[in-house]
Amino acid sequence: MTLTIAGLQHDGVAGDVEANLAIIADAARDAVTRGASMLVTPEMFVTGYNIGDALAPLAVPELVDRIAAIARDAGVAIIAGLPETLQDGAITNSLVAVDREGAELLRYRKTHLFGDLDRSLFVPGDTLPPTVDIDGVKISVLICYDVEFPETVRAAALSGADAVIVPTAQMEPYAHIAERLIPVRAWENQVHVVYVNRTGTEGDLTYVGRSSIVSPEGVVLDSLGPTDTGLLIATIDPEATRRARRENPYLADRRTDLY
Amino acid sequence: MTLTIAGLQHDGVAGDVEANLAIIADAARDAVTRGASMLVTPEMFVTGYNIGDALAPLAVPELVDRIAAIARDAGVAIIAGLPETLQDGAITNSLVAVDREGAELLRYRKTHLFGDLDRSLFVPGDTLPPTVDIDGVKISVLICYDVEFPETVRAAALSGADAVIVPTAQMEPYAHIAERLIPVRAWENQVHVVYVNRTGTEGDLTYVGRSSIVSPEGVVLDSLGPTDTGLLIATIDPEATRRARRENPYLADRRTDLY
Repeated sequence: MTLTIAGLQHDGVAGDVEANLAIIADAARDAVTRGASMLVTPEMFVTGYNIGDALAPLAVPELVDRIAAIARDAGVAIIAGLPETLQDGAITNSLVAVDREGAELLRYRKTHLFGDLDRSLFVPGDTLPPTVDIDGVKISVLICYDVEFPETVRAAALSGADAVIVPTAQMEPYAHIAERLIPVRAWENQVHVVYVNRTGTEGDLTYVGRSSIVSPEGVVLDSLGPTDTGLLIATIDPEATRRARRENPYLADRRTDLY
Repeated sequence: MTLTIAGLQHDGVAGDVEANLAIIADAARDAVTRGASMLVTPEMFVTGYNIGDALAPLAVPELVDRIAAIARDAGVAIIAGLPETLQDGAITNSLVAVDREGAELLRYRKTHLFGDLDRSLFVPGDTLPPTVDIDGVKISVLICYDVEFPETVRAAALSGADAVIVPTAQMEPYAHIAERLIPVRAWENQVHVVYVNRTGTEGDLTYVGRSSIVSPEGVVLDSLGPTDTGLLIATIDPEATRRARRENPYLADRRTDLY
């Protein structure tokens, strides 16, 4: 089995949930037309990200229900970035994955908060994400700054992931993360990395686009430019992961007795 | 205090210790003339690397004495790649660091053996390298394949290293390690990386050159091309390390409770 993933690179509409859900619904239909069985949005795409005090009122549980409905209607799995409000009122920078019937597969809360931007809005998650099976393909997830820590992708690869899916909102001056670091993360773990970024501006941030899907050999399978809007699409084949791990056996060659 | 390091990118002469020591002595004098206080050779440069059965007879303790003499004569610290024979007769892929008086600063045995090439010749080392102080600058070391594991550079950075010095013998088709992975290792740890490679051919290997010295911001401070012979030189300033760690606090932002 393989899994064809479409990533949505888009400006979104800061603070306008209905507009963003409409964009996701359009993209879900487009993804299915183009042969994808999973759609991935950027980080915090459902509400907008750098929207300050406007965020808290939008962080309601119904966001997940709306994503599930879009998935069911279009017949495509979705990984969407959105906020969650915890019982104590704190907010997390989260993502939810639902299958093509709208059933929840996993939820993950960003564990590595980025600077004042994240820390002024969110509390961190307290667990690394699980690795789950979709159509025989093992996927794990991270959010933006998480992937910049080699420990996180290593943990996903060691848990058997074929692909690490990373909604992000990467801004200037960090285009080099998208261009240079992401292919290295794929290569050093022999794992697909799906890096789906925003474009445009939001408050004082200019997002850098440059979304990519990278193979376990570190080869870019599909990508978009700094300001492109649309889908990037590639197929995750577990056999590609296995082949890469035979040819470049970093995981097997780790000296776990030393670190 | 700062430390100006010269890396020697060179073909070397496979199996000819006297020729290689003469090359190192010339480079040591040149390095001093150009203001460097440390010279770094590629991996296994003193004897040659991919020389099969010719290696064992050359793996004698006197190699270290010869390097120490060159350091003392030129007045420059040297990190040189060479083999060591253990008491049981096994050979290691090692490096030795001596100061400008020829006193030994550290010795390190490659812990991550690369494929059949290394495994047919060497036994692995059983400890990560120490971090040592030279002229107020903290340096650590790795050898070639070691640096491709993010765990190793992370360990050096966490031990306080300002620079990780990496003699290597990187061959086709792995030029992307030199070009892409090395700057990411520097960036993700806010540490200087000094990557000193061979050129030319040796047996069935074609070395890819492309030595570089990269700043803690991931900026290439000096580099050489695929077939250049000569020195690359840059100054390691601990203040640059501290500044990078304030601006990009990956080390502080690690979630050590999760991995």
